[in-house]
Amino acid sequence: MKKKTERVSFQGEKGAFSQQAALQLLGPAIEVVPCQRFDDLFRSLENRTAGAAVVPIENTLHGSVHENYDHLLRFEFPIVAETSVRIVHNLIAPPGVPFRAVRRVYSHPVALNQCLKFFERYPELVREPFYDTAGSVKMVMEERPEGVAAIASSVAAGIYGGAILKSSIEDDRQNFTRFFLLRRPEDVPPLAKVPAGKGKWKTSLVFTLKNMPGSLFRALGAFALRDINLAKIESRPLRGKPWEYLFYVDLIGRLDEPRLNNALGHLGELADFLRVLGCYPQGA
Amino acid sequence: MKKKTERVSFQGEKGAFSQQAALQLLGPAIEVVPCQRFDDLFRSLENRTAGAAVVPIENTLHGSVHENYDHLLRFEFPIVAETSVRIVHNLIAPPGVPFRAVRRVYSHPVALNQCLKFFERYPELVREPFYDTAGSVKMVMEERPEGVAAIASSVAAGIYGGAILKSSIEDDRQNFTRFFLLRRPEDVPPLAKVPAGKGKWKTSLVFTLKNMPGSLFRALGAFALRDINLAKIESRPLRGKPWEYLFYVDLIGRLDEPRLNNALGHLGELADFLRVLGCYPQGA
Repeated sequence: MKKKTERVSFQGEKGAFSQQAALQLLGPAIEVVPCQRFDDLFRSLENRTAGAAVVPIENTLHGSVHENYDHLLRFEFPIVAETSVRIVHNLIAPPGVPFRAVRRVYSHPVALNQCLKFFERYPELVREPFYDTAGSVKMVMEERPEGVAAIASSVAAGIYGGAILKSSIEDDRQNFTRFFLLRRPEDVPPLAKVPAGKGKWKTSLVFTLKNMPGSLFRALGAFALRDINLAKIESRPLRGKPWEYLFYVDLIGRLDEPRLNNALGHLGELADFLRVLGCYPQGA
Repeated sequence: MKKKTERVSFQGEKGAFSQQAALQLLGPAIEVVPCQRFDDLFRSLENRTAGAAVVPIENTLHGSVHENYDHLLRFEFPIVAETSVRIVHNLIAPPGVPFRAVRRVYSHPVALNQCLKFFERYPELVREPFYDTAGSVKMVMEERPEGVAAIASSVAAGIYGGAILKSSIEDDRQNFTRFFLLRRPEDVPPLAKVPAGKGKWKTSLVFTLKNMPGSLFRALGAFALRDINLAKIESRPLRGKPWEYLFYVDLIGRLDEPRLNNALGHLGELADFLRVLGCYPQGA
């Protein structure tokens, strides 16, 4: 019953790195629904303006996107896939503008800060903070201010018709952002009907533990003693209980494997609260 | 050899919640050194413009201040004390301005968002985002715009001579921020010379583990198997090694207790990297 063109929401302007993640996850035959804020992204599933949402969850330089961990708990939309995007920054200007004419460079402050070596090499360039990377290309292409370029993805250059003057100007090539694809629970087929295939799977959980010595050690034992690998652990504050925490973990394995199922039963004995956030093929 | 009036740095304007933490940690006989950004705060120790720095590390609603975890690793200034401050927001205006005259309320967006019930009760009040809570009181007191009030701490009201029109207007009373006090290593007396006293102590560590199944479980075992309580764990990305993590832990215990010392030796066998960030009395 799927429509041919699915509506997929992400945060940021068209051409954001999230749109590249959407392409990797769902291919080019999608209709994009840009959202201003992360909570709008989750609401786009709630109010059915989108059928799927692409949510950044962690970056290898900056760490987790903690706000989205909180939203995962609150909105209860299952994770159905993951992917990671290498963050490549490019200097983009209207076609015909030569590099030597560029005086000011607009982009999101995080992107500007990720190209410090480039700015050291060209100290005459003035950095101008802007609300969004792709948005800075949009502005440069629409308003064409003299001597102005933007820093953003090649997808953004393509969408707004900008020319790439310098490519891959980021300081650190080990800069990746991991994204989750979320859907409404009723749109997710039961796991039993999804073939496991050849690749690995991941299962994401969130839980709280009784506040007692060794409780986290025992909880992780539910996995370690069954040789289940923990890919990530993240702690978030538990509202209303100062200095107590929620734990989010990503496990390697599929929920319907007996050892994972047993581990969840074991964790359930130790946890005050436990929820599966999703079970999905490990992304590239 | 201590001077009578110590210079203590914190982030924000005078009257910030960090200043309240400084008062709790060191008493009123200090000279405050406000800093604009968190890295300025660490640099104030480096360039000796301050003898101690007060650093927010986590909030019970918003979670860890991750940037400061990164700075703790980079700057290597030991943690010598901790304290927590309850975040109480007050509506503050110049003396003589009645509540009914207030139309617009300035404060940091986080503070405005923490007083949503107050704004629901008085829907005619317009929220105006400002760069700083204490800074909003300073502005209101200096410029005296008509019908304008600010939301900030009672310390800020006192410093700038504002009157508290409504006190404790925050939605959630379980809103605490925990602060570390940092000093230069050469200004910290050896632990052997510091009496343990009657209260508990905490020891903070940062470490990385070999990327193998069960490594975090085994690392936490170094503590759990010795009945050492883990008060907090935080993970941060490891730069240059995508999808690997640094772990920051706070343990209950003093570094010179044999079982803690043994646990550190045990953890050292499992860790690729291990550093003690500080050993300090548990704060109130």
